[in-house]
Amino acid sequence: MANQLDAIMKPKSIAVIGASERAGAIGRELTNKMLSYGYKGELYPVNPKAETILGVKAYKNVMDIPNPVDLAVIVVPRDFVYQVVDECGKKGVKGLVIITAGYKETGHEGAELEDKLVELIKQHGMRAIGPNCVGIVNTDPAIHLDSTFIEAFPYEGKTAFISQSGALGGAIFNIAKDFNVGLGQFVSVGNKADVNDETLLEYWSEDAEIDQILFYLESISSPASFRKLAAKVTKKKPIIAVKSGRSSAGAKAASSHTGALAGADLAADALLKQSGIIRVNSILELFEVAQVFTHCPLPKGNKVAIITNAGGPGIMATDAICEFGLEIAQLSEKTTQTLRANLPPAASVRNPVDMIASANVKDYVTTLETILDDENVDAVMVINLPLVGVDPLEIAKAVVEIRNRRTEKPIVSVFMAKADFFNDLNKLKANVPFFQYPESAAKAMSKLDVQRRWVEKPVGNEPTFNVDTEKAKEIIKKSLSENRDQLTTLESIDVLEAYGIRTCKYAFAANVDEAAAEANKIGYPVVMKITSTKISHKTEVGGVIVNIASEADLRNEFKGLIERLQTYGYSASDLDGVIVQEMVKGNREMVCGIATDPQYGHMMMFGLGGIYIETIKDISFRIAPLTDIDAKEMVESVKAYKILKGARGAVPANIPQIEETLLRLSQLVKDFSFIKELDINPLKISDKTAEGVAVDGRIQVDMEAAKKALSCDCCCSNGCCG
Amino acid sequence: MANQLDAIMKPKSIAVIGASERAGAIGRELTNKMLSYGYKGELYPVNPKAETILGVKAYKNVMDIPNPVDLAVIVVPRDFVYQVVDECGKKGVKGLVIITAGYKETGHEGAELEDKLVELIKQHGMRAIGPNCVGIVNTDPAIHLDSTFIEAFPYEGKTAFISQSGALGGAIFNIAKDFNVGLGQFVSVGNKADVNDETLLEYWSEDAEIDQILFYLESISSPASFRKLAAKVTKKKPIIAVKSGRSSAGAKAASSHTGALAGADLAADALLKQSGIIRVNSILELFEVAQVFTHCPLPKGNKVAIITNAGGPGIMATDAICEFGLEIAQLSEKTTQTLRANLPPAASVRNPVDMIASANVKDYVTTLETILDDENVDAVMVINLPLVGVDPLEIAKAVVEIRNRRTEKPIVSVFMAKADFFNDLNKLKANVPFFQYPESAAKAMSKLDVQRRWVEKPVGNEPTFNVDTEKAKEIIKKSLSENRDQLTTLESIDVLEAYGIRTCKYAFAANVDEAAAEANKIGYPVVMKITSTKISHKTEVGGVIVNIASEADLRNEFKGLIERLQTYGYSASDLDGVIVQEMVKGNREMVCGIATDPQYGHMMMFGLGGIYIETIKDISFRIAPLTDIDAKEMVESVKAYKILKGARGAVPANIPQIEETLLRLSQLVKDFSFIKELDINPLKISDKTAEGVAVDGRIQVDMEAAKKALSCDCCCSNGCCG
Repeated sequence: MANQLDAIMKPKSIAVIGASERAGAIGRELTNKMLSYGYKGELYPVNPKAETILGVKAYKNVMDIPNPVDLAVIVVPRDFVYQVVDECGKKGVKGLVIITAGYKETGHEGAELEDKLVELIKQHGMRAIGPNCVGIVNTDPAIHLDSTFIEAFPYEGKTAFISQSGALGGAIFNIAKDFNVGLGQFVSVGNKADVNDETLLEYWSEDAEIDQILFYLESISSPASFRKLAAKVTKKKPIIAVKSGRSSAGAKAASSHTGALAGADLAADALLKQSGIIRVNSILELFEVAQVFTHCPLPKGNKVAIITNAGGPGIMATDAICEFGLEIAQLSEKTTQTLRANLPPAASVRNPVDMIASANVKDYVTTLETILDDENVDAVMVINLPLVGVDPLEIAKAVVEIRNRRTEKPIVSVFMAKADFFNDLNKLKANVPFFQYPESAAKAMSKLDVQRRWVEKPVGNEPTFNVDTEKAKEIIKKSLSENRDQLTTLESIDVLEAYGIRTCKYAFAANVDEAAAEANKIGYPVVMKITSTKISHKTEVGGVIVNIASEADLRNEFKGLIERLQTYGYSASDLDGVIVQEMVKGNREMVCGIATDPQYGHMMMFGLGGIYIETIKDISFRIAPLTDIDAKEMVESVKAYKILKGARGAVPANIPQIEETLLRLSQLVKDFSFIKELDINPLKISDKTAEGVAVDGRIQVDMEAAKKALSCDCCCSNGCCG
Repeated sequence: MANQLDAIMKPKSIAVIGASERAGAIGRELTNKMLSYGYKGELYPVNPKAETILGVKAYKNVMDIPNPVDLAVIVVPRDFVYQVVDECGKKGVKGLVIITAGYKETGHEGAELEDKLVELIKQHGMRAIGPNCVGIVNTDPAIHLDSTFIEAFPYEGKTAFISQSGALGGAIFNIAKDFNVGLGQFVSVGNKADVNDETLLEYWSEDAEIDQILFYLESISSPASFRKLAAKVTKKKPIIAVKSGRSSAGAKAASSHTGALAGADLAADALLKQSGIIRVNSILELFEVAQVFTHCPLPKGNKVAIITNAGGPGIMATDAICEFGLEIAQLSEKTTQTLRANLPPAASVRNPVDMIASANVKDYVTTLETILDDENVDAVMVINLPLVGVDPLEIAKAVVEIRNRRTEKPIVSVFMAKADFFNDLNKLKANVPFFQYPESAAKAMSKLDVQRRWVEKPVGNEPTFNVDTEKAKEIIKKSLSENRDQLTTLESIDVLEAYGIRTCKYAFAANVDEAAAEANKIGYPVVMKITSTKISHKTEVGGVIVNIASEADLRNEFKGLIERLQTYGYSASDLDGVIVQEMVKGNREMVCGIATDPQYGHMMMFGLGGIYIETIKDISFRIAPLTDIDAKEMVESVKAYKILKGARGAVPANIPQIEETLLRLSQLVKDFSFIKELDINPLKISDKTAEGVAVDGRIQVDMEAAKKALSCDCCCSNGCCG
């Protein structure tokens, strides 16, 4: 596949089909741009009515071109595209960029045309970008390809960009320049009919010319495989993404815009997190972070030192650094002594280091070098507030000069200067990220640490537990045979138990002797609940008795129960029996659950349960299947984790057992993918055993999918019989 | 006082004491700047050794100046300041700006010097800004005063700025220009020895030349009076503030910087909220918001319409608008019809309105006018993504032109263009706030709505309840007489009850008959707890019995209790008696509390109680005393409010009673200001009565302050005898 994408991203020859000289035509803008950017390969304009286009010899048809063609850029009207693509196939063209619009984004009819087109492309063994895109760029001097009709040209560099919004491309080229971020390759992916985010990720992960990847995403095509791939790529190269459609209103706007199914944002967020993708919320942040990654190594830790010539910005920087999860480094004794010897007495030599208003270029250099030598410091923020007497540009140059020699730690710089100053700075093409405000700098810098932690984090395993799949299957089959898509509580609990999840032990007993025997097996205290088809309001007749401490108590309570029923006008025979249930004592109630997102599939949740679920929303989400690392993070990332660990004198919960519960649930929905919803609420933390116990459970299946998967009663090839 | 500040901010004559011609001297920079800015009044340089300074006749001493002097700007070395100030007083100078540093910010000795200086200033009836500041500015053409040594000059305008960091001033002048925000008056307040934030707020609240006030604050001098004043001013003019020292590390940096006591950020945040001050977290946001307030009226509601020429930015804008608490307006039928008639078929005429890439200036004008006519729309965001063929500057001009005619609704504009473009825009001195990114625009715009809601909100009352102050006093006195700063639980409950707070009813009973009698009074179910000085582990001996349902049960349990004690080796006589306590049933546990912040005083809290306090932190804070509006907001702003209102089928709690509980607590600490800490945890919501009941209470006093306040046993003048 790599070779095929090479034909698109690094073509030796290009046919522009639909090239034109007509003013205002995209075919003209595009050919013109390709010429003025100076494409290094062979360019063949194709136009049935022209001898030359903009001074270049033109061909009537792609098949007339005497030499091989790597890439065809197609800008003909929609109704001609199919034929042109077919001709390209016949000619042996390897790759296509289809600019033409009018496909999936316009509705049902367009979507059908798009499907047919993809079929044709596949038949010919080609790969295609688009349709409905603004083109691609490769700034590599050996290629110099710009097949877009965007006004600006980008700088060259090692950043790749995928944009799901074509129009945004224009803004992106300009903004990249403002941030001094060089774009190596840019792809407007359009409708992603063939080549999509994954194809490009795979390609760029092996491309030595690319060292970070930026995304503007409105939807993710195949979440499961995307995640698998991205999780690998991000271990080598950072991926930073804006995924828009965060709000429900925004998601609505997104789907009307591109015809893509915008998934629930919680699911998207979980997916990006599990893929190691750094998510940001605006194009501004995207480039702020890209700027930092372009010019900084990953730090060894999260301890930041601040150097400033004014107190106020030092305080603001400190606030921001803490806000974004970094820490203020504690400078070593040696550092503070060296600083004290070199700076005026009024300077503060603790972090933030305030060199005061008199600080000149030499002070900046000495201080920065000293701080870089301190092994307690992982990264440095250098702040300058332009004051009379010192040219900030000289300070910037000095920082750049130090950066050339000292490449081991991130250096980020802040100049609280007029916007003009950054134009001047930009001309330096500096190797240091420069910001106007400490807050933006700290936020962007914090992502270096996010990436470090991701890279250092073990990959994680998806463990497989020894479970009783057969038993679970039988229970579900029974429910299906009764035409219920919702399992009863007891069925749900039994399914969970079959998957080795610690559930609340229970048993049915027809009479008091059976009840006593079962209670003795379960262990006291127990709860006793009546079961009866005739008595509907069980609690109102005192039909639920908690905290039964012994067999004697149980027999006593059973007697009282029968008497009570009689006072309510029932007879003993109205009682089918009782459920004797383990009584799990503890006041910590968690929740585990699974929901099915139409786009992202099974989404797992964990958090604070009981009456607080909806209001407090102390919940973490991950897309299934979970790795052990995912499960650990799910548990550790909720605020209630402190309560689990034993805050306020409580028994520390058995955290590994809770993580295992999540992993077993993940295995359950992997085995039975037709499970639509599952809730364990509460997963009660037993004060006695410290385990999380499923006290209540609820499982709902997709009836149709379940019937299909479990349809036959015989041994057959679809494996449902085990 | 207004007149006195007029002498400083609008002086008719100024003496610069310490004016100089020596290169690099602040006295030179400052005199030079005042001259080049073209101060409209009389300028008298004062220097004992010069005949003229920079071409202006100089005087040896301020007393030698033949005419009256309104303002003296003092830049002499610290050791001469006292004498110079004294001379100014004798001369009849009305106001001072003391640039000289070396006071409170340097430590104890400096603080003493500062105190003496303030005393002298007051003796002479003068007002002074500083010391340790960079000066003041008034850009009013009739005044044209710039007494700073900052390199840049600000634009004129109607925004006032107070900076607690002098150095930041330099950045502020430049940034204000970038944002096209004109600064009318600027004050570097320095150590705020005399004139402080309040003095200036009061002054500017009456100054017709000022319509918004910006703050860079590191500390607040007198929180209580500041809040009272600011809450009034903000009803007329928005105040937008950066209060740095948010993180604990930042607060440390702040206090080492200015010697000001930086208060806990939670308290600062509550104070700013209660003052109606719009808090932002960076200088960037400060000016983004200021820009919006400078050019927009307050909206009538929070419904925003978006107009764009590209889908991507429209989605991002929608996300951001929702994120910052605004809503996407639903366009009227009439609007969508008009848009449909005017825009190409591929355009989306629902909000966000996507005019697509072909949109020209005329499309922008027609669409914006149509949208402004829609009464479902309270504010508009106009987005342009520069595309080939349309000059964005022409679109900007068209928006400005519409703004001139249509002043009734806020219009905010976004151009996702290169930074250069904003330089060109800035030259327009446009009356529309222009942003580069939709997220920044939405965030800043959202503050208009915050201000609208603040202005519309009733002022609120501090109700006074009929309470038994005497009883509370007696209980506290008893504790003090036993040298305890911590009241017992029962004492605490009694104090709360004396203040009319619904507490858990209880009584002491020496024997079973008394216990039964008390329980009959309290009402069942009750809890019975042993009290004994000999038995320390009450629960271990089964000394706490809950859920006693009747007198018979109680007598039965009492008998069982005595038997149990005997099995543990105690005799009945080891028991002092029992506490019979109302049993409040309900699983909703809230917390109310009071803490004392060293700088901001009594801070009240309300939120989710029980085991969740520290981990979930669903808590709201306000500075006491509370108004009824404060109490309402405290209750409504926690997530658990939904649980109180009766989520998941629970009984809706009596919210007004809970609010009243907070107000009564506020009255309690107003009456007994020496109360250091108070906790009601839990304030249990009774499922039966829906009331919040103080089940447990804890009150701690500042021993010394309490003894002083309640010292005498006789009737005396300090009012403690009531």
